[in-house]
Amino acid sequence: MGANEHRQAREFEQVRQRSLHLAEPLSFEDCCAQSMPDASPVKWHLAHTTWFFETFILEPREPGWRPFHPAYRVLFNSYYNGVGAKHPRAQRGLLTRPGLDEVLAWRRDVDARIARLLSSAPQDRELAMLVELGMQHEQQHQELILTDLKHLLAQNPLYPAYLDSPLPASCPVGPLGWLDFEGGLAEIGHRGTGFCFDNELPRHRQYVAPFQLASRLVTNGEYLEFVDAGGYRDPSLWLSEGWDKVCSGEIQQPLYWRQEDGRRLEFTLHGLQALDPARPVTHVSLYEADAYARWRGARLPTEAEWEFAARDVAIACGDLHPRAAGSDGLAQMFGECWQWTSSSYAPYPGYAPAAGALGEYNGKFMINQYVLRGSSCATPHGHARASYRNFFPAGARWQFTGIRLAR
Amino acid sequence: MGANEHRQAREFEQVRQRSLHLAEPLSFEDCCAQSMPDASPVKWHLAHTTWFFETFILEPREPGWRPFHPAYRVLFNSYYNGVGAKHPRAQRGLLTRPGLDEVLAWRRDVDARIARLLSSAPQDRELAMLVELGMQHEQQHQELILTDLKHLLAQNPLYPAYLDSPLPASCPVGPLGWLDFEGGLAEIGHRGTGFCFDNELPRHRQYVAPFQLASRLVTNGEYLEFVDAGGYRDPSLWLSEGWDKVCSGEIQQPLYWRQEDGRRLEFTLHGLQALDPARPVTHVSLYEADAYARWRGARLPTEAEWEFAARDVAIACGDLHPRAAGSDGLAQMFGECWQWTSSSYAPYPGYAPAAGALGEYNGKFMINQYVLRGSSCATPHGHARASYRNFFPAGARWQFTGIRLAR
Amino acid sequence: MGANEHRQAREFEQVRQRSLHLAEPLSFEDCCAQSMPDASPVKWHLAHTTWFFETFILEPREPGWRPFHPAYRVLFNSYYNGVGAKHPRAQRGLLTRPGLDEVLAWRRDVDARIARLLSSAPQDRELAMLVELGMQHEQQHQELILTDLKHLLAQNPLYPAYLDSPLPASCPVGPLGWLDFEGGLAEIGHRGTGFCFDNELPRHRQYVAPFQLASRLVTNGEYLEFVDAGGYRDPSLWLSEGWDKVCSGEIQQPLYWRQEDGRRLEFTLHGLQALDPARPVTHVSLYEADAYARWRGARLPTEAEWEFAARDVAIACGDLHPRAAGSDGLAQMFGECWQWTSSSYAPYPGYAPAAGALGEYNGKFMINQYVLRGSSCATPHGHARASYRNFFPAGARWQFTGIRLAR
Amino acid sequence: MGANEHRQAREFEQVRQRSLHLAEPLSFEDCCAQSMPDASPVKWHLAHTTWFFETFILEPREPGWRPFHPAYRVLFNSYYNGVGAKHPRAQRGLLTRPGLDEVLAWRRDVDARIARLLSSAPQDRELAMLVELGMQHEQQHQELILTDLKHLLAQNPLYPAYLDSPLPASCPVGPLGWLDFEGGLAEIGHRGTGFCFDNELPRHRQYVAPFQLASRLVTNGEYLEFVDAGGYRDPSLWLSEGWDKVCSGEIQQPLYWRQEDGRRLEFTLHGLQALDPARPVTHVSLYEADAYARWRGARLPTEAEWEFAARDVAIACGDLHPRAAGSDGLAQMFGECWQWTSSSYAPYPGYAPAAGALGEYNGKFMINQYVLRGSSCATPHGHARASYRNFFPAGARWQFTGIRLAR
Repeated sequence: MGANEHRQAREFEQVRQRSLHLAEPLSFEDCCAQSMPDASPVKWHLAHTTWFFETFILEPREPGWRPFHPAYRVLFNSYYNGVGAKHPRAQRGLLTRPGLDEVLAWRRDVDARIARLLSSAPQDRELAMLVELGMQHEQQHQELILTDLKHLLAQNPLYPAYLDSPLPASCPVGPLGWLDFEGGLAEIGHRGTGFCFDNELPRHRQYVAPFQLASRLVTNGEYLEFVDAGGYRDPSLWLSEGWDKVCSGEIQQPLYWRQEDGRRLEFTLHGLQALDPARPVTHVSLYEADAYARWRGARLPTEAEWEFAARDVAIACGDLHPRAAGSDGLAQMFGECWQWTSSSYAPYPGYAPAAGALGEYNGKFMINQYVLRGSSCATPHGHARASYRNFFPAGARWQFTGIRLAR
Repeated sequence: MGANEHRQAREFEQVRQRSLHLAEPLSFEDCCAQSMPDASPVKWHLAHTTWFFETFILEPREPGWRPFHPAYRVLFNSYYNGVGAKHPRAQRGLLTRPGLDEVLAWRRDVDARIARLLSSAPQDRELAMLVELGMQHEQQHQELILTDLKHLLAQNPLYPAYLDSPLPASCPVGPLGWLDFEGGLAEIGHRGTGFCFDNELPRHRQYVAPFQLASRLVTNGEYLEFVDAGGYRDPSLWLSEGWDKVCSGEIQQPLYWRQEDGRRLEFTLHGLQALDPARPVTHVSLYEADAYARWRGARLPTEAEWEFAARDVAIACGDLHPRAAGSDGLAQMFGECWQWTSSSYAPYPGYAPAAGALGEYNGKFMINQYVLRGSSCATPHGHARASYRNFFPAGARWQFTGIRLAR
Repeated sequence: MGANEHRQAREFEQVRQRSLHLAEPLSFEDCCAQSMPDASPVKWHLAHTTWFFETFILEPREPGWRPFHPAYRVLFNSYYNGVGAKHPRAQRGLLTRPGLDEVLAWRRDVDARIARLLSSAPQDRELAMLVELGMQHEQQHQELILTDLKHLLAQNPLYPAYLDSPLPASCPVGPLGWLDFEGGLAEIGHRGTGFCFDNELPRHRQYVAPFQLASRLVTNGEYLEFVDAGGYRDPSLWLSEGWDKVCSGEIQQPLYWRQEDGRRLEFTLHGLQALDPARPVTHVSLYEADAYARWRGARLPTEAEWEFAARDVAIACGDLHPRAAGSDGLAQMFGECWQWTSSSYAPYPGYAPAAGALGEYNGKFMINQYVLRGSSCATPHGHARASYRNFFPAGARWQFTGIRLAR
Repeated sequence: MGANEHRQAREFEQVRQRSLHLAEPLSFEDCCAQSMPDASPVKWHLAHTTWFFETFILEPREPGWRPFHPAYRVLFNSYYNGVGAKHPRAQRGLLTRPGLDEVLAWRRDVDARIARLLSSAPQDRELAMLVELGMQHEQQHQELILTDLKHLLAQNPLYPAYLDSPLPASCPVGPLGWLDFEGGLAEIGHRGTGFCFDNELPRHRQYVAPFQLASRLVTNGEYLEFVDAGGYRDPSLWLSEGWDKVCSGEIQQPLYWRQEDGRRLEFTLHGLQALDPARPVTHVSLYEADAYARWRGARLPTEAEWEFAARDVAIACGDLHPRAAGSDGLAQMFGECWQWTSSSYAPYPGYAPAAGALGEYNGKFMINQYVLRGSSCATPHGHARASYRNFFPAGARWQFTGIRLAR
């Protein structure tokens, strides 16, 4: 076994370990409940990421493979029609069995078998690529563990904290600046030999007209000005669909803002906290991001603009709640909030998904979703890059989504 | 402290203990999940019954009362508008906090304080009546713990069993017989000095025409004849609303019947079992009970007929799944399945609910519900009586509901 | 052809003519639109009543019968599964073809053929009974033509009037009095040889305890006191289901009450009018009737009480909007508003519907509906009687429904 | 008054006249009904287009302007929040008043006043531009009159024809060919001084990679191969959202295909007709277009590709049902079916909507909609151009939408 294989085995162990680490502060009950169809129980995430390794790696590749439990193939299939039947998404929280202990036992079993497979086939490039995909997949679910859990805890009038420590107030941030970019006929998409998802390829040319990008994310304080100026009461600022959601009461302020005795609060993974005007506004929909930008006389960037600007920006890592901007230049591109773009999620020219069920990973979602760029305070270390394309429907708010202005 | 007070204190302890006993085979996760808005988590039942004692007894009567936890008054209020705000019913399963351990601690605390109150006021008739009401209330929730849990487990494709033991096949039962009743100007409603709910009062006169009642409940075998004869495909047998539910696919067979490789199975608290033709059919709606009766050229009894016939029947106790009829005469009136009547749930002439929030116990539900009589295999010992009026909407199927024919 | 047959032929012509008369003030468009699934277009009523005669009389009885149009059998079937397929109820307003002219031609054709059949079979008792049923059926739809049309016009911000004449204010009515009834073992149900629907039979005994009935209907003025006293804000007055509808905004005041510049108005068939405090409150649900009664320390009558009291009351005819009470004694029993009772719509002991599709007329609706007694200002002349059982769901408000108190 | 003004006055009269011409074969009832919230009654279209002239031209510009009817401003406002309140979209079919005659009178009144205004201000460039916009707007509604009416008639089991003439079968069309385009850094967007909507501007550069475009639209015959090959049963061909709609039964074949005794039929404005294999498939969603393309190993074009290819194509006009391809080269770009592109509807770089309520015309819909290019058989003469951007949600099928393949 060579150095690369050793490295991957160690990474595999670390990635798998980190998922467990995230669940440590939680009770059995916290891990089982599901707060809405879009969010999944922590236990389900722990199981589904294991299912991914068992289904796409062990099942076709392990000699004499037998399933850990025959029912899990259906129970923990997320959306792969190519694999077969699926347990209904909205009913994941009703699966009190298998219990957390059984899922953890399954994890240990699969971990051991993957490790064995890796050591038995040190030169198998395809295996290495599948394990890499499985780890990236698990990292995506690590972010979802945190955002889905946050959504669950926010439904509880007790507003339980995931983390013990309080959230200190930040120093005030300076005024928002604008950086100029020349644009031109740019190369967009993943470059190099590192891992990327299929939706980041092929690298291709796009013409980008000259543009400006805001030096940092929009803060809570700035967004509060929009709220106080009646931003949620003026239809001329809103996309038609967004205004419908405002009128129906679905959208009234950022998802986790609360008011109590006239004080503005924000629910965080540290529990309910005073709203910090210096930190970035987060948990906003594309509708809100777009309305805010219009109110400021600006707009959202396209994903090509964002990627063009981010080419040489260093990747920063997050801290489970967005922090105030500290640096000069183009700040907060990574590690604080995913940044809504005006670009709908569409295939790059020449895009081809993988064959078989794994081809369902990205391609079939390229409709009625919008691209978010950057990474958030919940994105695992090593998972972010400039070409990364996250995507959610325009109304989604339970991710750490924020606003970067362009013009 | 006199003998009566000692007796009540002991009964209180026993009733409270039995709720815990029911939860013993369950995991933390089993106790937290909620499978539909009509059903509640086991943990919620354990908490709400405690809330009842704290809110209606300790709060107004305990010197220097302070709440165990100030938020619980809202969190575990079921439907008492007179008490104030309520946590939304459909979101009880999202309350992962307080955890089961905290709820059990609350139970112990309230138990001790109620015991103290009882011993400190041995002659307090009103206190004794409230404690009695609280125990009867808890017994009602004990039945719901079982039926709600059964519904939850039935959503799981693994069909977990609550009880370890298998369910033996029964001996065949004899043909259904008919018993004659003369009727006349009858006294209906609770008689005597024992406990009853307000909806069983006042005792009053009703004219009951001569009628016949079936000697036992309809069996699975008999109901299967209805199914095989196309009962679910013939609109002429159905109430219009029921037929709509058949056409929409909501009602297709008794709630927990399943088919597997051509075999008929039934989900029970003992897990998935072969359908036993001798046991009573259960988990049917009023629509199905009514259609079956029409198909047999019979009808459902009115609640007055049922009570008239049940006056001198001995109360039997159940075994968590309905058993085949064993005795002669009027069998299975108690302890197997609640029996749908054709009577809508309405106040008896002169009915007056209690003052204050406790008046919400029964009266406000007297609309669009139908009365079920008898008791079921899940009804606690000592909770059944001939004048008892259970009630559910015509489409409810997750209780142990069965069919007694009349004509 | 004898006198009876002549009489029926003439009555048939009159009844049929009156339907056309009701449609006279309306445009083609008014006759075609459907404002909600529960209400039907006027044109549909004109067609469906014709369908009834063609399907249940001409088709089985006319020598060499051929349908006027083969598609009408499905298009204008309301709910008779025994007849076969039905056009979806909620899409009746989309049937712009056949146009009103074609429907009127169909009416003329069927009228002529029924007349021919009647004259060719003067002694056919069964035919006479079917024609009688068809006329009674058409009269029921004449009331629906008015209430469905009123609902449609009320959706239009122009509030168009069906009748030209304004609605004069009434003289004040005196205070509500109470009349005593002894009750006892009463005979309930239709008596005599005149026409009645199957649901009014069999006549049977019921024990009725002594009761009091209000001397007249509740007025707008009295109901306004309830509104002004916060009746719609106090959950303790409401059935649980009703309170849910209040909270969701579905029920906030009587259906056609409006407010404009602080003035209370009521939409009537004469257009928008000042709310007249002396006229009976109308277009209220059972929930509102029940809450009002509770607030007054009274209750709604049972249908047996109502019928007991109405036995010797003279039938009055209405005037398309409820009038203020004028007479002494037991006033407004007929001809103003249907009166909600607390009785659910259920079969009388021994009830048996007709064989075949006509058996669907009443029986299959005996679930989750409540009985209304009396008749309304829109009930055709000759259609009311003391034993008549009208029925609607507790939330229905588009009929002329009012409140008679009991205690 | 100069030649230009004369020309516009004449065009105005012609455009207004053509709307009436479209309604000629229809009854009052046909013109009033609304078959779904997305479609509007013909009468509403006739009124709303008049509202547009009255609200945006007469109201601000006519000396001493008074409304024809004060309520119409709200009744016939479609979606302009800047104008104020709107009658709810889903209830347009309930507006039986004003009747068609009143709407036609309003039209005549507004026509005369616009004509007067035009002749009184011959040099008013802004007025001329607004009148031009009003005419273009009316032309858009002329297409909707036809598609909304077709949807209404299709709900009627009688399948009424709008046009008397039958639809002849076409000659077979040759095999689909592929045309090569070099692409490059292209100019996209409207060019020249003729009218265009704001969403076609500003003209800007986009890089277009080399591509191929199909020589004609996909035919019914070709699409039938997809259906017969199980295209609607294979999830691997579908976008995830599209597959959900297939599974729910919402999408099962093109919207107006029918089957009768084994024969394939298509509902057209000529009534129900045999499905013609040579004519283009129409009334398909983007989901179906995308699945079909994937099945053929092709894809849908981007809007930039489509516009690039269409630059020099002559505009053809349609015939109310798509015709089979006749010509060589790049056929059927205009006048048969709108062609789904893979491009989401988004602002061009630098896009700025007009100030005031007219700015709501296009911009606020730039979310979750996809661009269609070309024009259809229902597009009015003179309304099509290569830069025209039509847009609908991916699931919309009631427009004349078809499939042009790319690769």
